[in-house]
Amino acid sequence: MYGFEYTTPTKVFFGPGTEEKVGQILREYGASRVLIHYGSGSCVRSGLLDRVIASVEDAGLWCCQLGGVVPNPHLGKVREGIDLGKRERIDFILAIGGGSVIDSAKAIAYGLAEPDLDVWELFEKKRKAKAILPVASILTISASGSETSNSCVITNEETGEKRSYNDNIARPAFAIMDPELTMTLPDYQTQSGCADIMMHTLERYFTRSGSMELTDAIAEGLLRTVMKHALILREDPSNYDSRAEVMWAGSLSHNGLTGCGNDGGDFACHGLEHELGGMFDVTHGAGLTALWPTWARYVYRDCLPRFVRFARNVMDIAPGASEEETALAGIDALEAFFRQIGMPVTLKELGIDPSEEEILKMAASCARANGGRKGSARVLFEEDMAEIYRRAR
Amino acid sequence: MYGFEYTTPTKVFFGPGTEEKVGQILREYGASRVLIHYGSGSCVRSGLLDRVIASVEDAGLWCCQLGGVVPNPHLGKVREGIDLGKRERIDFILAIGGGSVIDSAKAIAYGLAEPDLDVWELFEKKRKAKAILPVASILTISASGSETSNSCVITNEETGEKRSYNDNIARPAFAIMDPELTMTLPDYQTQSGCADIMMHTLERYFTRSGSMELTDAIAEGLLRTVMKHALILREDPSNYDSRAEVMWAGSLSHNGLTGCGNDGGDFACHGLEHELGGMFDVTHGAGLTALWPTWARYVYRDCLPRFVRFARNVMDIAPGASEEETALAGIDALEAFFRQIGMPVTLKELGIDPSEEEILKMAASCARANGGRKGSARVLFEEDMAEIYRRAR
Repeated sequence: MYGFEYTTPTKVFFGPGTEEKVGQILREYGASRVLIHYGSGSCVRSGLLDRVIASVEDAGLWCCQLGGVVPNPHLGKVREGIDLGKRERIDFILAIGGGSVIDSAKAIAYGLAEPDLDVWELFEKKRKAKAILPVASILTISASGSETSNSCVITNEETGEKRSYNDNIARPAFAIMDPELTMTLPDYQTQSGCADIMMHTLERYFTRSGSMELTDAIAEGLLRTVMKHALILREDPSNYDSRAEVMWAGSLSHNGLTGCGNDGGDFACHGLEHELGGMFDVTHGAGLTALWPTWARYVYRDCLPRFVRFARNVMDIAPGASEEETALAGIDALEAFFRQIGMPVTLKELGIDPSEEEILKMAASCARANGGRKGSARVLFEEDMAEIYRRAR
Repeated sequence: MYGFEYTTPTKVFFGPGTEEKVGQILREYGASRVLIHYGSGSCVRSGLLDRVIASVEDAGLWCCQLGGVVPNPHLGKVREGIDLGKRERIDFILAIGGGSVIDSAKAIAYGLAEPDLDVWELFEKKRKAKAILPVASILTISASGSETSNSCVITNEETGEKRSYNDNIARPAFAIMDPELTMTLPDYQTQSGCADIMMHTLERYFTRSGSMELTDAIAEGLLRTVMKHALILREDPSNYDSRAEVMWAGSLSHNGLTGCGNDGGDFACHGLEHELGGMFDVTHGAGLTALWPTWARYVYRDCLPRFVRFARNVMDIAPGASEEETALAGIDALEAFFRQIGMPVTLKELGIDPSEEEILKMAASCARANGGRKGSARVLFEEDMAEIYRRAR
């Protein structure tokens, strides 16, 4: 088992109605002037925003709002939030939404804690953040795990670059997780979320590191649990227990737990997907499933024992004539599962058809963003990245 | 799935040699005057204490030491630590050891943060703590999980009462976990630790709550992992990977993760064991295994689906003619496993033979300490507690 550092300070309040006490919790965390950040307005239409404002004001706190965060959240909105936050002397940011809104809130929080910072420099890896304003969320989409993770992904809409910046100081103060708030999500969003959750564990699972048996047991249990409940939610989107299992899995899948003892994980699919997201604005989970089968068939020979283990313990594949056969059957089975939950497994199914020029541009950008190489199951270079995009079409 | 709150702020530094940087880490956490707290002196003999002092002093921090913590740590030592800490204006406590030393450190930290507090009042549940000094540990025994948990168990050696006080403010600032430091433990200590680790998850597992599938998958994976590596460590105590799996399991087993979504867990065996520990000063893990089989056979009918699930998913029992038969086979199998790792499964094997009078005294004390009732798999009253002690003899 490799050595590791593990820190998950975010306090989780999980269960129905937990959002009602958000004002009181914010006060316990020392908030006084709160920016409430949200997305497309579904929390306006559902009345959730009003309930949150009432709870915040009942607790004697001041708040203002900034909505309009889009999937693959934009740097422009982040800058708008920073300007607003400075003007209103905000000391706490509360995100209502999923990963896009929480990530946008984190980026604004970096900008407010260091007023002279050009926040995009963090995502360009030109410097590290020195501080961040406290952030918390009321989660309405189970997917990104951003509610407890250290990660933040922002798209510069002017350049088409989607970039991540991970820093433990960005782990939120608290997360309010009420599974009932996710019941009205469209099936495609629910399933994209399940795919994203699975991918956060898969990226940590397919490595060439040594033994990490407890971590593997947790990872495999998490994957099986999400797969089971993703299927239930296709038929019964209001199933509370399934919504709860998926929501809790989303947090555990990306807070670091499913990677303790590995070599840092692979994350090549995430790197490749970020280029798709930046160039074509696709749904993150769907972008990941559109790439995964191709990626897996491209790399599995270099990481055969893990692909065999995955096939046996997660996909319940009987051992084949050879390890290769078992591994490939496991990949086929996950591909079939992705199809079963309505996710694309090729770029065409994702609705995009990148030209050779676009593929070369994405591969170059992905390589540049990752210091020329990405991956652990197999280390990918620029030409590998281009080839995976090609084969995924 | 029940609602829950979950907070595990302790930062984990896991891996070989992590203790060398303890001074620098303490400084990052704002420590300046550190009380180094330890037990029987094995850390003196091994040279660990000297290395830690060197690291602390190299970081420019002042420190003093207080050793002599015993298993089932004494209130007297806690009071001695509080006196020393006040005199030396200590602002951080570093425990080197296992659960006894860390718990003693936590109790001292409560006393130093509230100078007018009689710390035993916390354990008598007469009041809640308002504050605590920061605590951290260098873990040398995998067992209690106290390195990341909110719990603290102290024995009042004058009255023979062993009492717990759980409070999230007592979660340590950081935990340094180097599996190599546990390699020289005697087998009995290693196996008692494995038993304790398993029990922390079993106490959360045997409840009559609703669905908690991800939590169950994690719990079952943890139990299987610990059982496997406990057996390896009987033969090969220097096996790094096994030491690492057990050490990490120890933290995850008692930080709350394996109970997320349950009804709070059962913990009757812990309640019953605390009386044994207070009266007879037994090793905690061994006291637990000496009670568990009797407890399980006393309660399983009231919690049958969980005992069947345990038999199938953890003990790998084929389904019997009836659910009762499957459940009992699972209990038999865990009892056999405890024997296999050298743990007692009766009070006689634990080396004690309580009189009827002592049994009634322990049952009365256990009932009193727990508001008259304890348990979830089956709620136990004073007469049930006495009967379990009797049958366990």
